[in-house]
Amino acid sequence: MAKLGYVGLGVMGGRIAKRLMDAGHEVTGYNRTQAKAQWLVDQGMTLVQKPRAAAEASEVTFSMVTGTDALRVIAEGEDGIVAGLGPGKVYVDMSTASPAVSRGLAEKVVARGARMLDAPVSGSVSTLEEGRLSLMVGGEEAVMERVRPILEQIGPKITYVGANGQAVLMKIATNLSLAVQMLAFSESVLLAEKAGIKRETAVEVLLNSVIASPMVKYRGPFVLGLPEEAWFDVDMMQKDLLLALESGREMHVPLPTTALTNEWLTAARALGLEREDFAVVFHVLAHVSGIE
Amino acid sequence: MAKLGYVGLGVMGGRIAKRLMDAGHEVTGYNRTQAKAQWLVDQGMTLVQKPRAAAEASEVTFSMVTGTDALRVIAEGEDGIVAGLGPGKVYVDMSTASPAVSRGLAEKVVARGARMLDAPVSGSVSTLEEGRLSLMVGGEEAVMERVRPILEQIGPKITYVGANGQAVLMKIATNLSLAVQMLAFSESVLLAEKAGIKRETAVEVLLNSVIASPMVKYRGPFVLGLPEEAWFDVDMMQKDLLLALESGREMHVPLPTTALTNEWLTAARALGLEREDFAVVFHVLAHVSGIE
Amino acid sequence: MAKLGYVGLGVMGGRIAKRLMDAGHEVTGYNRTQAKAQWLVDQGMTLVQKPRAAAEASEVTFSMVTGTDALRVIAEGEDGIVAGLGPGKVYVDMSTASPAVSRGLAEKVVARGARMLDAPVSGSVSTLEEGRLSLMVGGEEAVMERVRPILEQIGPKITYVGANGQAVLMKIATNLSLAVQMLAFSESVLLAEKAGIKRETAVEVLLNSVIASPMVKYRGPFVLGLPEEAWFDVDMMQKDLLLALESGREMHVPLPTTALTNEWLTAARALGLEREDFAVVFHVLAHVSGIE
Amino acid sequence: MAKLGYVGLGVMGGRIAKRLMDAGHEVTGYNRTQAKAQWLVDQGMTLVQKPRAAAEASEVTFSMVTGTDALRVIAEGEDGIVAGLGPGKVYVDMSTASPAVSRGLAEKVVARGARMLDAPVSGSVSTLEEGRLSLMVGGEEAVMERVRPILEQIGPKITYVGANGQAVLMKIATNLSLAVQMLAFSESVLLAEKAGIKRETAVEVLLNSVIASPMVKYRGPFVLGLPEEAWFDVDMMQKDLLLALESGREMHVPLPTTALTNEWLTAARALGLEREDFAVVFHVLAHVSGIE
Repeated sequence: MAKLGYVGLGVMGGRIAKRLMDAGHEVTGYNRTQAKAQWLVDQGMTLVQKPRAAAEASEVTFSMVTGTDALRVIAEGEDGIVAGLGPGKVYVDMSTASPAVSRGLAEKVVARGARMLDAPVSGSVSTLEEGRLSLMVGGEEAVMERVRPILEQIGPKITYVGANGQAVLMKIATNLSLAVQMLAFSESVLLAEKAGIKRETAVEVLLNSVIASPMVKYRGPFVLGLPEEAWFDVDMMQKDLLLALESGREMHVPLPTTALTNEWLTAARALGLEREDFAVVFHVLAHVSGIE
Repeated sequence: MAKLGYVGLGVMGGRIAKRLMDAGHEVTGYNRTQAKAQWLVDQGMTLVQKPRAAAEASEVTFSMVTGTDALRVIAEGEDGIVAGLGPGKVYVDMSTASPAVSRGLAEKVVARGARMLDAPVSGSVSTLEEGRLSLMVGGEEAVMERVRPILEQIGPKITYVGANGQAVLMKIATNLSLAVQMLAFSESVLLAEKAGIKRETAVEVLLNSVIASPMVKYRGPFVLGLPEEAWFDVDMMQKDLLLALESGREMHVPLPTTALTNEWLTAARALGLEREDFAVVFHVLAHVSGIE
Repeated sequence: MAKLGYVGLGVMGGRIAKRLMDAGHEVTGYNRTQAKAQWLVDQGMTLVQKPRAAAEASEVTFSMVTGTDALRVIAEGEDGIVAGLGPGKVYVDMSTASPAVSRGLAEKVVARGARMLDAPVSGSVSTLEEGRLSLMVGGEEAVMERVRPILEQIGPKITYVGANGQAVLMKIATNLSLAVQMLAFSESVLLAEKAGIKRETAVEVLLNSVIASPMVKYRGPFVLGLPEEAWFDVDMMQKDLLLALESGREMHVPLPTTALTNEWLTAARALGLEREDFAVVFHVLAHVSGIE
Repeated sequence: MAKLGYVGLGVMGGRIAKRLMDAGHEVTGYNRTQAKAQWLVDQGMTLVQKPRAAAEASEVTFSMVTGTDALRVIAEGEDGIVAGLGPGKVYVDMSTASPAVSRGLAEKVVARGARMLDAPVSGSVSTLEEGRLSLMVGGEEAVMERVRPILEQIGPKITYVGANGQAVLMKIATNLSLAVQMLAFSESVLLAEKAGIKRETAVEVLLNSVIASPMVKYRGPFVLGLPEEAWFDVDMMQKDLLLALESGREMHVPLPTTALTNEWLTAARALGLEREDFAVVFHVLAHVSGIE
């Protein structure tokens, strides 16, 4: 069993930390809002005051925070994770952040004699709890192999993507399809509904059809009723789409459906729906279809 | 065992007819190009010269043709299926055609004392052969129940959608998501590829992710190599998108991602790719990304 | 002075007929709703009961109706314009209709020894009254030259476009830009307005800028207050966009901004605004911007 | 006559400086690449080594640079314009930069006892030389009135927009329509061309139609032949669209046609056309229409 660090104990990060504890590892955690990590302390996790302390106490340190800015806050500076790393240690960031920033961090980590992997996940809380989470990994392949047993305890499907920053780019590339699929699904449901088919029936048919991706399967029913707490809200999704659009511009890939979908997320925010699950684009489209 | 008619013995229709024969039914078939139905005759199917004759010989007559115009040709007129129907008979059309035309046919069928169902399928040849095809059914629910045992021999998932024409509308509503998912998938792959990730790796990751609908699972790999024979070509997909866009206008549902994707299919046709599987939109996007 | 026929005496057609009478021509007119043509009768126009009668009485017969279906009604059949034509006569259709239908009519006209021109206009009632209307002409150039003096009395800018049907195609190609310019203008105004700039100021600045096409100059102020009677309503504009999109598909030209704008017109119809001037797309966009 | 400073003597800035000299003002200029300003020195302009020196020598200092980053370079720091300002002086920035950065600079200017205006122009070199340039002004209205006589020597149409930063926002809002109008114009031309109408004829008709904004009038002919030197290149236009899209997201305005057009500019860059006038989107669309 290993000594592991976990920085960022939110809805997803906290559950992953718990999973690692359940697998027998010793976890040292850090969270900006300490109270939210109390349930993990109750189950044996050591809570520290600085991200750096988590890295100092651990062989492998994980982080999962809400974006590029948050990543810089917990990784950089004298209190940051990087400062707590040293020879032989591995830092695994699971956040969805700017690929360029991720690459920059990896260089700083190497300068300290350690190694970094970017290892974003595909899936939601439910996918994690069903033990079906997919991880994409960027960085040195040998480093990935060293920590593979631990990664597999998080999720069984590990795919080596390429150099540092490429896994997080791959995550962003994946998420653009998520958003677009949801808007297209909304068009499918509304077209059926306006033709006199019950919304429930339309959803059921679509969930049994060849368009039913895992995402459509769990998020599609949200058009019948949004979850009280968003699984992935409009603001978070738009953050990912902006990273995709920014990367597309830098690398010269036009992203027509992504750009269009992004504007519908802006409309959702204009209507005050930024904290709702991004499935709420359905209601934005319904709004201009004259039915809501 | 029943006496069944089958009009339209193409790639999909022929295999369904075969499946019904394998289940023990006696099938009378019609196909415009008779030679293409020879393999079914070899296995015991009776081939007739007019669609009407198939209907006259059968308790339940199926049809599956390539669109609204083809449907009118085989169903209407003195040689058509409707003319061969009578009291107690059922006509099940599995084509993807205009919902309004389907409703109109249903009325003519009723006038002859028979009943019609529209029963388009979701899935491809491979889905059929794996016995996982989904059928959506429009028409009277009691009529569907009468023929349900036969429908289940085609595919196990039967969903009652609503009145005549609504199942075919539901099929069109489903197909718009197919096309949009494929274009979004292409954006995902190209963004990854331009970032230095191998196309094969990008496809593998995406096929293990939450965006992997059954369609993405079987069509996604086409971006690595198009099939020699299109599973569903650009022209056919555009025909369905036009039905969706037309229905959207009639019933007042804006379909932004559908409209945009449709123009990329037009671009595919402009580039001479109309007979390729519609996965070829990937190459159209690659074309304006400067990599092909 | 010539004997002229005019079929279709609506807002635009009526004013053109009047202009031709003012120029000294003898006009025989037809309108489906006769009462609406009374003001022209009061000024000396002869009103007839069939389109054919207008053609029979005239050397040059004009028509201007609301679309392809209406054009067929007044031009075809035994009461139609074509039936009233004969050697030496010229038929000038100013409607915006399907280019293919226009070409088909031209063939029938030739079969009667006469000639047809399609001569749609660019501009509105105000452009006409200011004597600045542009006409595009399709058909034989020599025929256009024969009637040029009369055409110039309608509008001073005559452009020969090409064969029969090409002028009406050119009109459709022009109108797609009209709709897109209006939606883009709406984005410009709303962006300014949300930044705290008064809507009036934003409109004023834009009307003094390089984006101020004649259309933007007269229609832009409509975002401050729609006209009581639409100059060109949502339904009519969508009809033209459909002709453009249909032509684009047939001839393999992707029309991305047209397709997208068309869906916003559908949204306008969904919100019950189909009879408003198409400048109402501004309000649809405002609606999803949370300000109306 | 006044003592004026001018920082940024490029294609547009240099010509404005010349115009001010012609009007009798004494101009002190700064340009990063000094050689490009020699022609102005030859006509009597004083060239200085630092932006600050231009401001120190002048009552009113103008600047016109290529974007937000360039603006910060010439305005901020100890060598920047702001450091050379003092009580009673006015700084007029004519660049198209981030509204937020412009507002921030205005605060620093006030802290030095001076005042700032943002005064972007609408129009091109040809508009300037014809004496028809429009200026939008942001900042205190009284300050604008003080310098109005000088502004009118640049262009006759002065519109007061609102507080600091709002004029540059208005410029960005204007420019989004420029890009969209150009893409829509391209669709119009290509649709006509594919229908058999000569490209020259299509352009001529469109330039005589109600869609012919001043921008369409001077840029439309570029589809017949791009200018050797771009008037406004793809990179510059995309910079403005990004400012628009960013502002739209911040202030919650969906910008559908802008977002879509921006992706076609990305395609232009992917095809290596980033230094061409943005009218080159025509060729990108032609490229996927199979005609180039």
